Amino acid sequence: MSLIVQKFGGSSVADAERVMNVASIVTDTYAKGNDVVVVVSAQGDTTDDLIDKANEINPKASKREKDMLLAAGEQISISLLAMAIEKLGYHAVSLLGWQAGFETSSAHTSARIKRVDASRIKREIDKKNIVIVAGFQGLSKYGDITTLGRGGSDTSAVAIAAAMHADLCQIFTDVEGVYTADPRKVKNAMKLSEISYDEMLELATLGAQVLNNRSVEMAKKYNIELEVLSSLKKASGTIVKEKSKMEKMLISSVAKDTDVARISVTGIPNVPGLAFKLFTKLSAKDINVDIILQSIGHDGKKDITFTIAKDRVDEAVECLKAYVETIGANEVLYDDTVAKVSIVGAGMESHAGVAAKMFEALYDAQINIQMISTSEIKVSVLIDAADADKAVSAIHAKFFD
Amino acid sequence: MSLIVQKFGGSSVADAERVMNVASIVTDTYAKGNDVVVVVSAQGDTTDDLIDKANEINPKASKREKDMLLAAGEQISISLLAMAIEKLGYHAVSLLGWQAGFETSSAHTSARIKRVDASRIKREIDKKNIVIVAGFQGLSKYGDITTLGRGGSDTSAVAIAAAMHADLCQIFTDVEGVYTADPRKVKNAMKLSEISYDEMLELATLGAQVLNNRSVEMAKKYNIELEVLSSLKKASGTIVKEKSKMEKMLISSVAKDTDVARISVTGIPNVPGLAFKLFTKLSAKDINVDIILQSIGHDGKKDITFTIAKDRVDEAVECLKAYVETIGANEVLYDDTVAKVSIVGAGMESHAGVAAKMFEALYDAQINIQMISTSEIKVSVLIDAADADKAVSAIHAKFFD
Repeated sequence: MSLIVQKFGGSSVADAERVMNVASIVTDTYAKGNDVVVVVSAQGDTTDDLIDKANEINPKASKREKDMLLAAGEQISISLLAMAIEKLGYHAVSLLGWQAGFETSSAHTSARIKRVDASRIKREIDKKNIVIVAGFQGLSKYGDITTLGRGGSDTSAVAIAAAMHADLCQIFTDVEGVYTADPRKVKNAMKLSEISYDEMLELATLGAQVLNNRSVEMAKKYNIELEVLSSLKKASGTIVKEKSKMEKMLISSVAKDTDVARISVTGIPNVPGLAFKLFTKLSAKDINVDIILQSIGHDGKKDITFTIAKDRVDEAVECLKAYVETIGANEVLYDDTVAKVSIVGAGMESHAGVAAKMFEALYDAQINIQMISTSEIKVSVLIDAADADKAVSAIHAKFFD
Repeated sequence: MSLIVQKFGGSSVADAERVMNVASIVTDTYAKGNDVVVVVSAQGDTTDDLIDKANEINPKASKREKDMLLAAGEQISISLLAMAIEKLGYHAVSLLGWQAGFETSSAHTSARIKRVDASRIKREIDKKNIVIVAGFQGLSKYGDITTLGRGGSDTSAVAIAAAMHADLCQIFTDVEGVYTADPRKVKNAMKLSEISYDEMLELATLGAQVLNNRSVEMAKKYNIELEVLSSLKKASGTIVKEKSKMEKMLISSVAKDTDVARISVTGIPNVPGLAFKLFTKLSAKDINVDIILQSIGHDGKKDITFTIAKDRVDEAVECLKAYVETIGANEVLYDDTVAKVSIVGAGMESHAGVAAKMFEALYDAQINIQMISTSEIKVSVLIDAADADKAVSAIHAKFFD
């Protein structure tokens, strides 16, 4: 007998039919002799409907009240799922975040889990109940309802799995697992049976948003075995764990990220500390910089080029223009028709020539590389956005066909 | 400076515009230097929408899960009202039933308030916050969300007023107060400026459902002054308190109740205890009997006639038919085209002839009286349902014109 945590997102419980489908998955798992804790997000439309209601009244409402409002969403989905499980003849009990013992920071709308006191969950398991927990929410030390922010329900599920020493944490989504490339775009994309935490983390930052990064980090920290699988199709998914048997493969996945823009600051005087200050300005505005390229430049001046998220371009350019004037640099240029294409694989740590093979694939496809960035298990290139899909296919074919 | 509890029902917060209207009533009260605790029900449609969602999945869901689901309704309305108050430039904090200290029995869907630990509310008042509390809901000793059943938000408001020793508890509704008769039906109906708890209780049981009876009983027990008033029209309403200055008036109100049916069991053998057993049968099914009339009958047999709520007729008749056979009575007859018309007034305790005056009014209007029932402050008659409005007008004219 195992303890299994199962997490279902908002689209998996969007309507009565889907709630019944989730109930059948959960009760099948329970009927096989497992203890089951289920973590559920709010139903598909609920969160948007609630946000609309709030905006109609006060778009600048306090974050505390936004959390109070949004937390009602999971309250609805957990009770409906409990009712569906009861209908199938099993005992279920739904628990809100605070009832399930989620103690969080008091940073409303983006609280962090501090501790999960799983005693109530354990009592309900002992009573042979299927336990359904509201994801995404918790309680601050002030006794106020908090929410965890984007992807919070994944994190809720992993936190419960960690607190209960669960044998497996299954994340049900609308995809069937983690693929070697986007299966909608690349014909020969293959579902991976296993992937390591680190590879999964790199993939998440590359726009292949299957799992929320915080949840993968937590799973890695507590060594929780994750499985990403579909709630609509019965098939085993992708296991995420520390040591993947895939490690022998050179790369596990090719991903693209089009939510990226390139910014260049040209003619920066060659004085120590100027580049540092430039990035400090951006960091003060919470703008994350990804790939950085610094040219040697001419006449004692240099250019710095870097990438940021596309939706922060206006803010970044405005902030940098003011800075450029004060230090006597030339100008700020930007291009948001770029894409980042990456290969990820724990195998490349011990294999030379992986980057070269990737560049060869791009050369064969006549795709120009603007910037390059590498980590131990990742190689990313910045290219023209129009070439992105072609690049993914070419690289995928080079490594997997 | 006073402490005022204000309660708003679901129709008062049905949409964004009405929520803003409530926010302006609340902040006006606060701006006058009062401490304000607001109790809110779920928005107009929310409860029905949630019940529809539940029924689509499992109409026989457990009461615990129904409570979990429905309690989300007030969570939405309290946070929206807090946002509306913030928009008007005031500080507000919304509290769920459990956060506001509502400890209840564990009878899900009809829990009773055991205690209100108002310490959190007091802390928020001390911080100069307008406090908004979710009505209708609390927490059982098992840590489960409960709801108080029909009219529960009125009771929540009075319970807070009692726990906080509030100076006034205002119940905002869609009527402007308590009237001498239904103002939509009786031309000269007058709004009462005051009424006693006992009169209000008698009125509530007579179909003039302005206030939930549990809330009036609790207000009487803790001597909380209530005011019933409109959320849509600025005007003082009706004060409900122990000693009303209206006490000098013979009667305070004329009410009708058409949710009533008459049942007769004929030819009951004249043996002691049979009538008692008959009512025990009904009581076992939770069917309340109101007016009772026992005839002398013929041949050592008697008839018993009584009234019950109209929607329990089928159940009562079925139950009694079986009983009639076992004791050798004749038959069970029923009539659901009847109405109960009543006069209520603390004044009649010390004034003779009130009932006679009522009967005279009915005689003048050629209305036949089927049954009569009296208490210290009430006289009720059962008449043909078709005569009900005419009877109310005739009686009202006799006493008030």
